[in-house]
Amino acid sequence: MSIPTLVFTPGEPAGIGPDLIIKIAQQPWSAAVVVCADKNLLKQRAEQLNLPITLHRYRKGEELPQHEPGHLWVEHIPVCEDVIPGELCTANGHYVVDCLKRASDGNLSGEFDAIVTGPVHKGVINQAGVAFSGHTEFLAHEANCNDVVMMLATEGLRVALVTTHIPLAYVAKAVTAERLTNIITILHNDLTKKFGESSPKILVCGLNPHAGESGHLGREEIDIIIPVLEQLKKQGMNLHGPYPADTIFQPKYLEDASAVVAMYHDQGLPVLKYKGFGQAVNITLGLPYIRTSVDHGTALELAGSGKISDGSCRLAMQTAIDMARAAYYE
Amino acid sequence: MSIPTLVFTPGEPAGIGPDLIIKIAQQPWSAAVVVCADKNLLKQRAEQLNLPITLHRYRKGEELPQHEPGHLWVEHIPVCEDVIPGELCTANGHYVVDCLKRASDGNLSGEFDAIVTGPVHKGVINQAGVAFSGHTEFLAHEANCNDVVMMLATEGLRVALVTTHIPLAYVAKAVTAERLTNIITILHNDLTKKFGESSPKILVCGLNPHAGESGHLGREEIDIIIPVLEQLKKQGMNLHGPYPADTIFQPKYLEDASAVVAMYHDQGLPVLKYKGFGQAVNITLGLPYIRTSVDHGTALELAGSGKISDGSCRLAMQTAIDMARAAYYE
Repeated sequence: MSIPTLVFTPGEPAGIGPDLIIKIAQQPWSAAVVVCADKNLLKQRAEQLNLPITLHRYRKGEELPQHEPGHLWVEHIPVCEDVIPGELCTANGHYVVDCLKRASDGNLSGEFDAIVTGPVHKGVINQAGVAFSGHTEFLAHEANCNDVVMMLATEGLRVALVTTHIPLAYVAKAVTAERLTNIITILHNDLTKKFGESSPKILVCGLNPHAGESGHLGREEIDIIIPVLEQLKKQGMNLHGPYPADTIFQPKYLEDASAVVAMYHDQGLPVLKYKGFGQAVNITLGLPYIRTSVDHGTALELAGSGKISDGSCRLAMQTAIDMARAAYYE
Repeated sequence: MSIPTLVFTPGEPAGIGPDLIIKIAQQPWSAAVVVCADKNLLKQRAEQLNLPITLHRYRKGEELPQHEPGHLWVEHIPVCEDVIPGELCTANGHYVVDCLKRASDGNLSGEFDAIVTGPVHKGVINQAGVAFSGHTEFLAHEANCNDVVMMLATEGLRVALVTTHIPLAYVAKAVTAERLTNIITILHNDLTKKFGESSPKILVCGLNPHAGESGHLGREEIDIIIPVLEQLKKQGMNLHGPYPADTIFQPKYLEDASAVVAMYHDQGLPVLKYKGFGQAVNITLGLPYIRTSVDHGTALELAGSGKISDGSCRLAMQTAIDMARAAYYE
């Protein structure tokens, strides 16, 4: 059986992204791994961490071997200024986006099977003069996708969001029938195609407390959510809800569910992160390829220190490999 | 040492409230327990459950003994129509409110130290012609309190809510400086007085995802929440935040915290109920007495069946006893 090829982008060079890939590279993976980054940065960071690494130049089109501990294939993209761990540098804002662009292009052309992204610092990229509102938005724009879905996953629970990083005051208006239809359709399709599930059971939260309590606590369930679910169920989707968000996260409901749809960020993620506790992965659905990401930030103060947890990054790698196998190799 | 006196209201007579008090009465409690209910209803339900119970007539002003398993002191308030478990009856809507009123009066006069409430069915009370929007609102009105605080608690976590049962679309506007100040002040005062904590550490969530991310995802943190916290900290309160709701529920933050303030229902309760899993208690703060409640509904279909979990009710009893001891007896 052939193996998938993953591309990793370490993200902010002064953060822990380079540390993560050096650490991750020390263990075996059942995939080929390419890193889009500055090779000197990786070498320096490995020395600081006192971890052995041999860097190989990646050549597009070449057949890559399965990942061996201590080796990395690198698509060299040079930084503009030398990197000091923990110190943001505006001059390297473009570098971060260049790495992402190369990885995105490689996924769109089929050169890679999946992308795993380390953490970026949005502020420094924007200061460098690049309008950048986030990884997900960037990748969606490059791939010409209108709607993508942010899904976080941990052992035993996946939560997909209908709305993501918007003020709470805008959430109710943002949950339209069109958006909800698109999000659930993408979720259903990707659970089928990228996770290999034949009829994924999807649980849907209400928007309001107690899922509106028959309209007493808000009408969006009656006016929008229930009609959308009915419509999509007619198309054969295995949908259930809307349920109150404070009762749905119970083992008896979750045990045979493939994913929970939360209407907004703080309805679904506190319980997922509480359950996952450092072992969560961020997955973007709806792209024409597979993308996973760490669920944490740049942790600038820990860069080069060796005192980092790579739990989320390992989960992001393994999830991308599992998805690529289900989608393309099994 | 003297013992506290609790009053229990079973709530909806066709629901599991009567079952709960019969079950609860089988074990010892370090308090005197009075039930405001129809004595025949209690007797019938005990027979259905095949549990031994001896009912004593409660006389106001009489010195009560500590609760003994299998005995209950009853303030008899008659139902209007015979109760069939599981079948709602509009004629008994007034009865539910009469029981509550009697217990509320007894708490306001100092006859009782605390009230523990079973689940009510709002619909049938309103159909009976009594405007009733909930236990909490009823008790607050009777006690002439403008603001009270709904707090849910489970082992290791307490969550107090700034807004409760309102549509999500109204939440952002309902989080005013005045309301936030009142809620946090009540919480601080009651944690001190009713829980015996000297400087309770209170963690406060932001309203928006990532607590607004410095204003990029909403300005309520900057315009309202942070100024209120600064003001209250000057008064000596041990307040921290605003924190992102998806990172605050982690052991490292929670271990020495007394309570977390969530801005709305579905921000705080999914994680609490996930953690508590049937072992959560609802506590009303800001009343001139102690009130705890089960955190579940009437479960009509289970009334009389014996197949109920009394975990939340036991926790409500024990919490009320602990609070009464801290407030009045230690």
